[in-house]
Amino acid sequence: MSAKIPAIVSNRVSDEAKRMTDVVAKFVEEDCVPADPVLEAQVGEGDARWESHPPIVEELKAKARKLGLWNMFLPKGYYAESPGWTNLEYGIMAEWLGRSRVASEACNCAAPDTGNMEVLAKYGNAAQKEKWLKPLMDGKIRSAFLMTEPGVASSDATNIELDIKREGNEYVLNGQKWWSSGAGDPRCQIYIVMGKTDPSNRDPYRQQSVVLVPANTPGIKINRMLRVYGYDDAPHGHGHLTFTNVRVPVSNMVLGEGRGFEIIQGRLGPGRIHHAMRSIGASEVALDWMLMRVNDESKKPFGKLLREHGVILEWIAKSRMEIDAARLVVLNAAIKMDEQGPKGALKEIAQAKVLIPQTALTVIDRAIQSFGGAGVCQDTPLANMWAGIRTLRLADGPDEVHLQQMGRNENKRGREATERIKRQQARTAELMKRHGAQTAQPGTRIRHSKM
Amino acid sequence: MSAKIPAIVSNRVSDEAKRMTDVVAKFVEEDCVPADPVLEAQVGEGDARWESHPPIVEELKAKARKLGLWNMFLPKGYYAESPGWTNLEYGIMAEWLGRSRVASEACNCAAPDTGNMEVLAKYGNAAQKEKWLKPLMDGKIRSAFLMTEPGVASSDATNIELDIKREGNEYVLNGQKWWSSGAGDPRCQIYIVMGKTDPSNRDPYRQQSVVLVPANTPGIKINRMLRVYGYDDAPHGHGHLTFTNVRVPVSNMVLGEGRGFEIIQGRLGPGRIHHAMRSIGASEVALDWMLMRVNDESKKPFGKLLREHGVILEWIAKSRMEIDAARLVVLNAAIKMDEQGPKGALKEIAQAKVLIPQTALTVIDRAIQSFGGAGVCQDTPLANMWAGIRTLRLADGPDEVHLQQMGRNENKRGREATERIKRQQARTAELMKRHGAQTAQPGTRIRHSKM
Amino acid sequence: MSAKIPAIVSNRVSDEAKRMTDVVAKFVEEDCVPADPVLEAQVGEGDARWESHPPIVEELKAKARKLGLWNMFLPKGYYAESPGWTNLEYGIMAEWLGRSRVASEACNCAAPDTGNMEVLAKYGNAAQKEKWLKPLMDGKIRSAFLMTEPGVASSDATNIELDIKREGNEYVLNGQKWWSSGAGDPRCQIYIVMGKTDPSNRDPYRQQSVVLVPANTPGIKINRMLRVYGYDDAPHGHGHLTFTNVRVPVSNMVLGEGRGFEIIQGRLGPGRIHHAMRSIGASEVALDWMLMRVNDESKKPFGKLLREHGVILEWIAKSRMEIDAARLVVLNAAIKMDEQGPKGALKEIAQAKVLIPQTALTVIDRAIQSFGGAGVCQDTPLANMWAGIRTLRLADGPDEVHLQQMGRNENKRGREATERIKRQQARTAELMKRHGAQTAQPGTRIRHSKM
Amino acid sequence: MSAKIPAIVSNRVSDEAKRMTDVVAKFVEEDCVPADPVLEAQVGEGDARWESHPPIVEELKAKARKLGLWNMFLPKGYYAESPGWTNLEYGIMAEWLGRSRVASEACNCAAPDTGNMEVLAKYGNAAQKEKWLKPLMDGKIRSAFLMTEPGVASSDATNIELDIKREGNEYVLNGQKWWSSGAGDPRCQIYIVMGKTDPSNRDPYRQQSVVLVPANTPGIKINRMLRVYGYDDAPHGHGHLTFTNVRVPVSNMVLGEGRGFEIIQGRLGPGRIHHAMRSIGASEVALDWMLMRVNDESKKPFGKLLREHGVILEWIAKSRMEIDAARLVVLNAAIKMDEQGPKGALKEIAQAKVLIPQTALTVIDRAIQSFGGAGVCQDTPLANMWAGIRTLRLADGPDEVHLQQMGRNENKRGREATERIKRQQARTAELMKRHGAQTAQPGTRIRHSKM
Ligand SMILES: Cc1cc2nc3c(=O)[nH]c(=O)nc-3n(C[C@H](O)[C@H](O)[C@H](O)COP(=O)(O)OP(=O)(O)OC[C@H]3O[C@@H](n4cnc5c(N)ncnc54)[C@H](O)[C@@H]3O)c2cc1C
Ligand SMILES: Cc1cc2nc3c(=O)[nH]c(=O)nc-3n(C[C@H](O)[C@H](O)[C@H](O)COP(=O)(O)OP(=O)(O)OC[C@H]3O[C@@H](n4cnc5c(N)ncnc54)[C@H](O)[C@@H]3O)c2cc1C
Ligand SMILES: Cc1cc2nc3c(=O)[nH]c(=O)nc-3n(C[C@H](O)[C@H](O)[C@H](O)COP(=O)(O)OP(=O)(O)OC[C@H]3O[C@@H](n4cnc5c(N)ncnc54)[C@H](O)[C@@H]3O)c2cc1C
Ligand SMILES: Cc1cc2nc3c(=O)[nH]c(=O)nc-3n(C[C@H](O)[C@H](O)[C@H](O)COP(=O)(O)OP(=O)(O)OC[C@H]3O[C@@H](n4cnc5c(N)ncnc54)[C@H](O)[C@@H]3O)c2cc1C
Repeated sequence: MSAKIPAIVSNRVSDEAKRMTDVVAKFVEEDCVPADPVLEAQVGEGDARWESHPPIVEELKAKARKLGLWNMFLPKGYYAESPGWTNLEYGIMAEWLGRSRVASEACNCAAPDTGNMEVLAKYGNAAQKEKWLKPLMDGKIRSAFLMTEPGVASSDATNIELDIKREGNEYVLNGQKWWSSGAGDPRCQIYIVMGKTDPSNRDPYRQQSVVLVPANTPGIKINRMLRVYGYDDAPHGHGHLTFTNVRVPVSNMVLGEGRGFEIIQGRLGPGRIHHAMRSIGASEVALDWMLMRVNDESKKPFGKLLREHGVILEWIAKSRMEIDAARLVVLNAAIKMDEQGPKGALKEIAQAKVLIPQTALTVIDRAIQSFGGAGVCQDTPLANMWAGIRTLRLADGPDEVHLQQMGRNENKRGREATERIKRQQARTAELMKRHGAQTAQPGTRIRHSKM
Repeated sequence: MSAKIPAIVSNRVSDEAKRMTDVVAKFVEEDCVPADPVLEAQVGEGDARWESHPPIVEELKAKARKLGLWNMFLPKGYYAESPGWTNLEYGIMAEWLGRSRVASEACNCAAPDTGNMEVLAKYGNAAQKEKWLKPLMDGKIRSAFLMTEPGVASSDATNIELDIKREGNEYVLNGQKWWSSGAGDPRCQIYIVMGKTDPSNRDPYRQQSVVLVPANTPGIKINRMLRVYGYDDAPHGHGHLTFTNVRVPVSNMVLGEGRGFEIIQGRLGPGRIHHAMRSIGASEVALDWMLMRVNDESKKPFGKLLREHGVILEWIAKSRMEIDAARLVVLNAAIKMDEQGPKGALKEIAQAKVLIPQTALTVIDRAIQSFGGAGVCQDTPLANMWAGIRTLRLADGPDEVHLQQMGRNENKRGREATERIKRQQARTAELMKRHGAQTAQPGTRIRHSKM
Repeated sequence: MSAKIPAIVSNRVSDEAKRMTDVVAKFVEEDCVPADPVLEAQVGEGDARWESHPPIVEELKAKARKLGLWNMFLPKGYYAESPGWTNLEYGIMAEWLGRSRVASEACNCAAPDTGNMEVLAKYGNAAQKEKWLKPLMDGKIRSAFLMTEPGVASSDATNIELDIKREGNEYVLNGQKWWSSGAGDPRCQIYIVMGKTDPSNRDPYRQQSVVLVPANTPGIKINRMLRVYGYDDAPHGHGHLTFTNVRVPVSNMVLGEGRGFEIIQGRLGPGRIHHAMRSIGASEVALDWMLMRVNDESKKPFGKLLREHGVILEWIAKSRMEIDAARLVVLNAAIKMDEQGPKGALKEIAQAKVLIPQTALTVIDRAIQSFGGAGVCQDTPLANMWAGIRTLRLADGPDEVHLQQMGRNENKRGREATERIKRQQARTAELMKRHGAQTAQPGTRIRHSKM
Repeated sequence: MSAKIPAIVSNRVSDEAKRMTDVVAKFVEEDCVPADPVLEAQVGEGDARWESHPPIVEELKAKARKLGLWNMFLPKGYYAESPGWTNLEYGIMAEWLGRSRVASEACNCAAPDTGNMEVLAKYGNAAQKEKWLKPLMDGKIRSAFLMTEPGVASSDATNIELDIKREGNEYVLNGQKWWSSGAGDPRCQIYIVMGKTDPSNRDPYRQQSVVLVPANTPGIKINRMLRVYGYDDAPHGHGHLTFTNVRVPVSNMVLGEGRGFEIIQGRLGPGRIHHAMRSIGASEVALDWMLMRVNDESKKPFGKLLREHGVILEWIAKSRMEIDAARLVVLNAAIKMDEQGPKGALKEIAQAKVLIPQTALTVIDRAIQSFGGAGVCQDTPLANMWAGIRTLRLADGPDEVHLQQMGRNENKRGREATERIKRQQARTAELMKRHGAQTAQPGTRIRHSKM
């Protein structure tokens, strides 16, 4: 709720946003969280899991829309339909969405649709917007973003190989994609596909293009869905697809040939903030569950409530402390992004991207441990949460890639830092002289006495 | 292979055991590891997963038996049919078994059968042995051990509540059990059940009894199977069962009423060593897979092989170092157990129990990370391994319980340590006097000059 | 400099404070940091270390005063002479002070004087203020705060034993104190002493009183000065003192008998923020030095600059990330304190108190390691910094005490969290019913087929 | 004592060595530990610290010699005067030596003399042995090993620059050295100096030579002594020296020009084991002190003994567990060295070199924390211990260098691991075919229903 907004940002959050945060919080806690197991139940079993559209989702979407909770992610001023929240404000709401599996979709704020809508809003032409952005913003269809490929190290996008060749008025696509999140959902109708139109271009950042490909285009085959630590995440899931001579009209090109890199880079900032804030919401849920367990009167190992076993209160304190610190890191990035755009907030976003999943995993793992056997199974949301967030350490750029980049950037200060210290040392020498002072070093008189 | 046996224990391993280790290693690497995906394929889908008995398992069992790889776990001298390996020797073999999912069962060395066979061998009477131990040792049937209950903190066995009442020549059982590993397997025919025959006994360690209950006894219901981070571990799985007026003849009591605690305590030592050594085997597999990935010529993020990215070699070095240290800890415990029995090796076993899963999880997690998306899905054994080993931090006594116990034991040295230090300090005082020496403390002359 | 103020708080910092931050930064970088080794040189050797008053300090004080950098710590509105900065604003300045050893004293913002001035300003009567606060605020004298005692666990202030007995118009003090920081300085003229006037009071928080004791009162003996990892921190140092029938007039009582607890509690909030922000400044210095080393052209182990050895850039990135996160945590606490006072900011202050030293120690230790041998010796400020900050994990309340307290506080949400989750589960049950849905659990059909 | 020798190695330790371990243990506990503060007192203050030879040391040496505790480090069969212990056996004794500061010197087993004696014994000619090795082995003089230089990254020995030029029958040395441990001791009479005789040799490992230089040779200046976190380690200390036209006869060359690398490499193995085992001894002392503190009846924060505060028992348990694991790692390396020499034990020694200091630092830091303020000052041996062991993470090859090397070595298995896994995958494919099995992948039937 708005009352929990940290002091440090409170004055930047409009009253309207605070009010809306309370609405989101109430909706999530009272409608979405209870609906999560219903969703899972409605997804069904076996093959049906990939054909189902759980009715509970539409019920929640209707309610969310009525409450004004719709497309909140669309940044202020960015698009006519934007509800007008800043990244900070939406970030605060996103934390609440992160407490429930279904909540983001219920408010039409679920990945990868959010990023895809941003791409279309920012780079799509009028026809593309009409055809795909509109139904997406209406929650009528869903979408997938197809970049990663099984054959190459995709954390470096220049490695992408899917072949896009122009033949007359069509582009012909050949290749494989995997980790196409959302591709399992029967409502997923459009793929935003990255591939190479000009693999021999000398500039490795001009070889790629982004093309819109309807999901039912002939030649596309979903080979299978990928599991994440045993979870299939149905119905949206993560697809492994083959493209064999898949043809789309040239008008499906976004922005123009060779501009793929530009597009995917513009896509990443806000999404990272959203994931991070949702992870914080998940951490709060984990902490709540842990609090429930350690105060459970029926669970007394060795004659004491769990909360009375010394180490447990320390887990709780650390979790509280780490979550609170993590939140500040993300909100700072959101504000920087509000002020200077994703480019200006590069460092802050990368820090949030790396720090938050690690914090969340630690907190959730503690909660799991506090539940004993119950923690790893289907009786709490914890194990599933953990698996989902574990992937954030490698999706969207693995930790190591971000750390290398951040290290290189910070190291640019090397010369300046060196020079400053050298200047200070020179000044010390001067001062020493002026004051007739001399550094006392032990043992300076050793030789004289020894020889 | 035997060549990898650490120097420190090599001289304690008989030539015969070394030879056999090579046989195990070859069997695991050439027959079992390749069979793991076949097993998974034969388990099938949906409800069938709980009715299947994968033919590949029997094929491997036949081969193992022919190779002399059968019941190796049964400690030397302990039982007529024991192949005669020491805990150390079997530990070394168990590391190899841990490299494959199917290998332990193929050699009739899989949990929970191993512990159950030990219970029957050690505490069962002749009739019980004939009826249950024999087919278990022949690999004809499987078994489950039912202690943990959903309603109480089961890491403290005195909390167990399942009610066992004598009525005439029968015991009547009522209550719930969960995490009954193996209960899913259609071949699982016998449950070793712990419950309370005398809940009001003043001695909390005399309230429990262990009873043998055939799986098909009326009144037993498997409510469902539990998932572990999304994996169902079919066909053996982990059952959640209800007992409603389940009746067994009084002859099914093991050892006698009130002796349940004694029985489960005797059960735990060797199993912990086995789990630990298997986890080390799993860690080695993870390291091998990581080595494969980081040298994969087709995976070059940012123009370099992964092994050329600085941090990766450090991961490999640390993994090697941590696995090697972990192995020594377990083998030391095994030797202590060989020499002084499980009781004498309490400390060493607890140390292995706590340390090894943490090491293995760290190593496996690094391997997962090095694979990017591939690491968390079904394309490597890594994610599944991680989930399995994660449970070892809480099953068989959570880390925290062991640490408390170990801390209390170590702290018993408190008085002795204090007295020794005090004695040394007294002696210092004497020496100072004799030498006319005085501790130089800074600032001892301050007051004189200031006042 | 003001340009580095994090986005998240930038709008709360007045232009005047920004301007002043630049002044502080310049003063610290150009005057104080170069003066640090001069200070150390002027402190001298042997006994002289406790009698010296380095001239460089007065030189810097004069300059600071001229620049308007004086008593910046005194919170806004709190005292007539306060320069009027908020805790946030002073916090930002304090980070700069933390880059130099001498800077805080140069600006009359050094502990323990700051806390002592606050005590006097807040709780002292007019005569006490005139006599002690005025010269302290003028930088004419220094002070010490004497709470901790060698004989008891002083992290729990109720254990304090120093005996304060009223005899006529005097209080007579008997007992020992140690870790009396600043007691070594020849200019330290006043001790703020906590002791027990009413040890048998039933309310353990009413037994203590705080009394002002001039340093040169007969009966006080400085037994010795304590070292911190080999450093003596001369001239201020940390004294171990004995009080033998030390007599002060009753007018030296602060606030009244039995109000000692109240006083020391009011003292702690701001000081923790100051220490934390200074530690962040120290971390920045460490990072700068590390940047210097890893780019040093003359230091090429194995043919590469240190920055080219993979792991180093990751150290730099992590250090940057952790420092930035830590800063947000402290600034958030400062703002909360600005808005709700130290009591209202209890949680936030405790989080900063625990988190920041750990972060700083990690960062500094990395810098030390990057210097090899040079890192642990007197040639960089790093080892000394590390030792100083290490003590913050136990001074002013050890980490464990804060964590316990924080854990207990957070755990108060236990019932509310439990009830909320239970409510949500009840609602799920309703929804399931209404939707005719049922949770799919694996294995629910096992029994039927088996029996 | 011998009773604490881990089960895993017990059978490799001769009865005589066990008996001797008891003698060492008794000598250390009863004579050396109490003498440590006496030593410190006798070292004195100021300049005197570098001129003193504490009488207590000679007293202990006499006693040690009488007990047969002399030069135990000299490996079996290695040298006529060797007492004949294996590396394992001496390792076990060295743990005891590590409990006291003075013990190693008392038994003539102190660094750097031990390594230097090994060099002389292994590579010195008869005259060199007579002149320097004999008095060293008799404990008459002490020595220093001068490799590290302030101007270069010395963790890579090829960087060493000290110039050694032949002029007629003399070598002339010019350059700087620092971290010359032992150079402060007035009894230190011989320096083993590494420098370059042939800096332009194409083979970077043939440029160096090792020369024996008497400490009183004209042209040598001890500029100052280096501090380690505030400690000066007097009288032996760590010198920073300048060599200006220092002349020694050509007969002082060891082994021959260009063979310096060979010599220093032969020097390192055993020393690392000794340091590691002594660090384990230090850790045991730290744990003992912690046990004393947490059971101290006079230290009751918040109404409970420290041992009753939950987290403390966990610290104790972890410390016990980590020390025990660390010991196994070192002893395993010692055994490997006994069996295959330092080269054959490269991996094991490196693992011990990296792991043990980290473990010891963690354990000692916990002990410090448990003492509160007392832990960081001169009242316990803890802070000094910590500082000493911290340097082991960078002396003798920093952690990072060892990890890189270990990573590279382990990675050599890359191809073999890859091929094995590939072979297993091929075999899986065959088995699948033969069994008519197929991997069940979720979602394989998606397209059919969707299109
Ligand atoms: C649940 C989930 C959902 C996803 N959803 C989508 C989606 O919707 N659309 C989509 O296109 N993709 C998606 N992805 C894919 C994801 O973005 C990629 O997995 C990720 O970018 C890493 O690429 P990769 O798997 O090819 O790993 P690789 O690029 O091969 O990297 C493997 C590992 O190498 C290491 N590494 C890489 N570079 C460096 C370096 N410079 N220094 C040190 N180490 C390095 C890292 O440890 C890394 O994890 C998803 C992934 C997951 C797990
Ligand atoms: C995969 C798997 C297989 C299993 N197989 C079997 C089986 O075959 N048969 C069987 O009977 N059981 C089995 N178990 C159950 C397992 O042994 C129990 O889960 C375990 O003993 C913990 O009991 P619990 O789940 O009731 O947790 P609880 O006892 O409620 O403990 C919960 C948590 O409380 C904390 N805690 C407990 N005591 C203390 C303490 N003293 N100090 C501090 N913290 C404490 C710990 O963090 C612990 O994890 C299995 C479990 C798993 C996950
Ligand atoms: C450099 C330095 C400067 C200082 N300056 C001053 C000063 O100017 N004036 C002054 O009065 N004091 C000063 N102190 C003292 C400092 O405040 C105390 O050392 C601190 O409060 C701890 O008290 P103690 O040393 O008596 O440790 P104890 O109270 O005996 O505590 C020892 C340890 O016990 C453990 N512990 C305590 N309580 C708990 C708990 N509830 N749960 C778990 N573990 C627990 C912690 O690990 C703690 O570190 C200074 C200390 C240092 C090191
Ligand atoms: C207490 C003490 C006693 C000593 N005694 C002696 C003695 O008696 N005689 C003697 O000759 N020397 C002695 N030394 C010196 C010691 O051996 C050197 O300090 C050590 O070898 C490191 O060399 P350096 O200090 O030149 O650091 P550098 O070689 O400059 O290395 C600095 C840092 O760079 C990093 N680094 C280096 N290489 C790599 C790499 N490949 N990858 C990643 N990071 C890397 C590491 O973090 C390293 O710590 C002693 C040192 C100490 C502290």
